[in-house]
Amino acid sequence: MHDYSQLDALSAVIRTGGFDAAATQLGVTPSAISQRIKLLEERVGTVLVKRGQPCTGTAAGRQLAMHTNQVRLMEKALDFGVPQADTLTPVRIAVNADSLATWLLPALAGGDGFLYDLIIDDQDHSADWLRAGEVAAAVTGHPGPVQGCDSHSLGAMRYFATASPDYMARHMPDGPTAEAFERAPAMTFNDKDRLQTDWAKTIAGRAVNLPKHRLASSHGFVEAARLGIGWGMNPESLCHEQLANGDLVEVSPNAPMDVPLYWQVSRLTAAPLRALTTSVMQQARKVLIQEP
Amino acid sequence: MHDYSQLDALSAVIRTGGFDAAATQLGVTPSAISQRIKLLEERVGTVLVKRGQPCTGTAAGRQLAMHTNQVRLMEKALDFGVPQADTLTPVRIAVNADSLATWLLPALAGGDGFLYDLIIDDQDHSADWLRAGEVAAAVTGHPGPVQGCDSHSLGAMRYFATASPDYMARHMPDGPTAEAFERAPAMTFNDKDRLQTDWAKTIAGRAVNLPKHRLASSHGFVEAARLGIGWGMNPESLCHEQLANGDLVEVSPNAPMDVPLYWQVSRLTAAPLRALTTSVMQQARKVLIQEP
Repeated sequence: MHDYSQLDALSAVIRTGGFDAAATQLGVTPSAISQRIKLLEERVGTVLVKRGQPCTGTAAGRQLAMHTNQVRLMEKALDFGVPQADTLTPVRIAVNADSLATWLLPALAGGDGFLYDLIIDDQDHSADWLRAGEVAAAVTGHPGPVQGCDSHSLGAMRYFATASPDYMARHMPDGPTAEAFERAPAMTFNDKDRLQTDWAKTIAGRAVNLPKHRLASSHGFVEAARLGIGWGMNPESLCHEQLANGDLVEVSPNAPMDVPLYWQVSRLTAAPLRALTTSVMQQARKVLIQEP
Repeated sequence: MHDYSQLDALSAVIRTGGFDAAATQLGVTPSAISQRIKLLEERVGTVLVKRGQPCTGTAAGRQLAMHTNQVRLMEKALDFGVPQADTLTPVRIAVNADSLATWLLPALAGGDGFLYDLIIDDQDHSADWLRAGEVAAAVTGHPGPVQGCDSHSLGAMRYFATASPDYMARHMPDGPTAEAFERAPAMTFNDKDRLQTDWAKTIAGRAVNLPKHRLASSHGFVEAARLGIGWGMNPESLCHEQLANGDLVEVSPNAPMDVPLYWQVSRLTAAPLRALTTSVMQQARKVLIQEP
């Protein structure tokens, strides 16, 4: 059995990045924090905190801190109904940037009493964080379920390939041909983002190698498209106004791409996150495309 | 002397993530790419590409690719005035997320003929990328100049500490006291973000340990504040509407925080980036706070 006062000290140091800050948060002295972590490291037989500015967890340290947070989350389910206004439990969630930019935040506002630690990653990779046990839940493109998780279908996010009218006239005067795609600057969120490449392949009828700006910002994508910097796949809710007023046009008319999304939540922490799961499902049903 | 057909092959593989994609981009066969990289690796005496899905550069490989891009950029300055509509030169720039979300994109749209590879990092850390030789230019909080770079003052970005009126009534009924700060959920962009902690210290009159949501999105910060999830430092241009219509209020009245920003550009590539530098300076003068 672990000593949870030691584990809480570890978790607080990793969360706050310092012994002093952890001490303030737990209402004890910095030397008490230091002593607890030293005892824990001796017991486990490995270094758990890399001392520095800020302090960070080693792989073992992060694993133990994650375990601690999970246990504290699970305890939250035990005293359901007991108001705990001052207790903010950290909960780590992996989410794709476009969900964060379009529909997730109102759902998170519905899950009260948590400190959200949001890991932003591509929808094709956010399930990796669940597999690694690094997050309690994820908005992901993988139907799963990942082992040890429950998976809930959220519906699909609709994307439109968009560019400015000037951009189209200049870079794709003959429309989105394979040759045009290989010269006209596209955008990509990061190296993991395959949306543009996949969509262009369906339109061009063959694999095309896109020259790409790299720009990891959902709102930046829409704005850069409007400014004629490149073309990119933008979520409908972020670009429908610009499509309506003519600031943006579709690169190929009436060719949206729907990306199904899932809410996967670790079974260990499903109970304390139940209200959050309900809030996420309700919000997704309002905003994402639901199958008929 | 290096063989630039080999270096271009290396740069293309690292940029596109694959031998096939690099071959398409350079208009040669994949086996030519493979041969060139093998010869280059033999010559340099170390592995330059980690083969995988996608292929990535080793530290040495990335250094050589960066060198290649710099040389290609420098060449661009030689044929000034010669139109090169189809040549897109990759240029890597480190930028803080709030600049990207507020004023930088129109400036980038002014620098034609580049493929932008934007590295988003905190304004206190974007100069590190310049020091490491990983980027050609940076929007940074460091006046510098970093060795080998020119530094141009851009003006200051003004931030307001904002929250929803409901949030303030619930979490800070007696205003932003040190005790309230230590219980009321704040937001932080990431572990490097010190804006909230620094601002709260000046308001509370002592160092305070903030419980923090982690949310790496400029627009997400504003939206989460509006939804009552937490308080955070938001750029004036992203929150002035919400402050005007009452969706957001200042956590402490009339207490903005100005963060000076600088455009630092490597002297090696300053010439080909001159038009971009002019465009960045003009846009910054329009949007950022200028000293009287």
